[in-house]
Amino acid sequence: MVAAASGHQLATPPVWFMRQAGRSLPEYRALRAEHTMLASCFDAELITEITLQPVRRHKVDGAILFSDIVVPLKAIGVDLDIVAGRGPVIAEPVRSRAGLAQLRDLEIDDVQPVLDAVRAIRGELDPATALIGFAGAPFTLASYLIEGGPSRNYTHTKAMMYGEPELWHALLDRLAHISGRFLALQIEAGAQMVQLFDSWAGALNRRDYVEFVQPHSRTALSYASEVPRIHFGVGTGELLEEIGRAGATTVGIDFRVDMEDAVRRVGQDYAVQGNLDPAMLFAPWPAIERRVREIVEAGRGARGHIFNLGHGVMPETDPGVLTRVVELVHSLGATA
Amino acid sequence: MVAAASGHQLATPPVWFMRQAGRSLPEYRALRAEHTMLASCFDAELITEITLQPVRRHKVDGAILFSDIVVPLKAIGVDLDIVAGRGPVIAEPVRSRAGLAQLRDLEIDDVQPVLDAVRAIRGELDPATALIGFAGAPFTLASYLIEGGPSRNYTHTKAMMYGEPELWHALLDRLAHISGRFLALQIEAGAQMVQLFDSWAGALNRRDYVEFVQPHSRTALSYASEVPRIHFGVGTGELLEEIGRAGATTVGIDFRVDMEDAVRRVGQDYAVQGNLDPAMLFAPWPAIERRVREIVEAGRGARGHIFNLGHGVMPETDPGVLTRVVELVHSLGATA
Repeated sequence: MVAAASGHQLATPPVWFMRQAGRSLPEYRALRAEHTMLASCFDAELITEITLQPVRRHKVDGAILFSDIVVPLKAIGVDLDIVAGRGPVIAEPVRSRAGLAQLRDLEIDDVQPVLDAVRAIRGELDPATALIGFAGAPFTLASYLIEGGPSRNYTHTKAMMYGEPELWHALLDRLAHISGRFLALQIEAGAQMVQLFDSWAGALNRRDYVEFVQPHSRTALSYASEVPRIHFGVGTGELLEEIGRAGATTVGIDFRVDMEDAVRRVGQDYAVQGNLDPAMLFAPWPAIERRVREIVEAGRGARGHIFNLGHGVMPETDPGVLTRVVELVHSLGATA
Repeated sequence: MVAAASGHQLATPPVWFMRQAGRSLPEYRALRAEHTMLASCFDAELITEITLQPVRRHKVDGAILFSDIVVPLKAIGVDLDIVAGRGPVIAEPVRSRAGLAQLRDLEIDDVQPVLDAVRAIRGELDPATALIGFAGAPFTLASYLIEGGPSRNYTHTKAMMYGEPELWHALLDRLAHISGRFLALQIEAGAQMVQLFDSWAGALNRRDYVEFVQPHSRTALSYASEVPRIHFGVGTGELLEEIGRAGATTVGIDFRVDMEDAVRRVGQDYAVQGNLDPAMLFAPWPAIERRVREIVEAGRGARGHIFNLGHGVMPETDPGVLTRVVELVHSLGATA
């Protein structure tokens, strides 16, 4: 996994799934029944157990740290909650210098349980399985803070971006350092690579992404420069050329993009990750198998390829199908 | 407008806005306060008045028929409602042959008020202003019917598409004839061009779009072959090459795609429409003006260009800004 993310083409692509540690697993739902999402993200034992569940079950090649994009914001004292069925809700949206001033640096003590979990997970993981650190990118964090929660149209976010560019850049720079530091601390504690999620970057066109977002993602990723860095966003087909240039070693590909096109657009400077449509997991097995083989084949043209979905696992997914996909990918050697 | 949509490059691009007849206008909100969305869509006087409101106010070059994607479904007796803040809700989702069998042909009597409105609008419109007919594309109609309402992940829709391809194609063919007939009736009544909305086609990758959707959009558009045909979907950057081939004369461009890229991808066989980000209308005027000029300039490279947003007008939009955009576009002659 680490080799693939660094840009090496392997005979058999390594595989993991975004949101593999989550609601598709009955053992996860059982654990979470007694703990809120936020409480779980600050409890070392729960983080450890939840992170390891899909590794045990599916035999994936990577464990993604169980966390949430807003964890470092909560850790520095932002008043927020994660509401089931809705997402993060911020008590006081940040739309001014005063709001920005509240966002202090992230310190090691703020995320101690997370770092304890990273160490515990590394202790339990087979050495061949990579522990992938996790953080949200500055744009996505900013969109939650500015809108006050999940958004459809990002009107407040874009209004600040276009209308108050100085405040915008100051806010994103702040968030970049918070997010970057969160990654750096995870690496110090034992994460062997990281994924930076810019979930909502797909709401932007390329010009705006390059001007208003990319420099800050680059700042965040600079904190992780000694390890391989996957960078992913939903609906980012128009941005693929730029996602790598934000400082990644591996570009996560949204499920809408044909993997052959993606490999061409990303070029030979970066590995790729992806990109089975998570909705495809509800299809009959022969349809899934055909698509998995096509993606693996297309991925062979890239500098390196990590097999994954092209968006997170949906809660209703049959986990047995995920396990079967892992087995299939692992069976596909270079001569297949 | 008709010339541009047919593929002629004009000195000054014609302009209209998706959802121009809608909640951004106080005169619309006043009318709608007393009538539900569905009732409004079947009342000739209301359709006429609402369709004309943005033409009077903004001096746009096109009037888009006020309607909703589910109108022809309601017209043939599907039990559905349009719920404020949510969208269309279908009482009994269609997921079987039995459900499909309920979808009968659309007859002229089913949509008489709509056709009366088309005639009335044509009577009132300046001859230089085009009346654009309106229908939803088979995939988007199918997704509402199968999911039972708006969806995030289209799991039921994709499950049928991959798992029951015969039922899928039969359903989409059925919807294509309903949608196509709705367009044909509007044209007979006086619509000079049409826009087919495939709102949710952006949820598909290109392979699936070509195999499961495009043939049916082509059937629908074949009913309108004697007039210019705009075809638009949200988030369809990956599909632009295929949207035109579905039988359009003009490809609607989502706001995320850089207009220069769009013109290149669409090629010289089709005109383009778009694509200012509707969220940009909340920006300061100089930022808006710069982007409008860039889009108009890029559009000059196309076979024809209709200026529009790259998604619908948002309800919170200041209508004064829309009027100003129309004035700006109209001021931009070819030598500007």
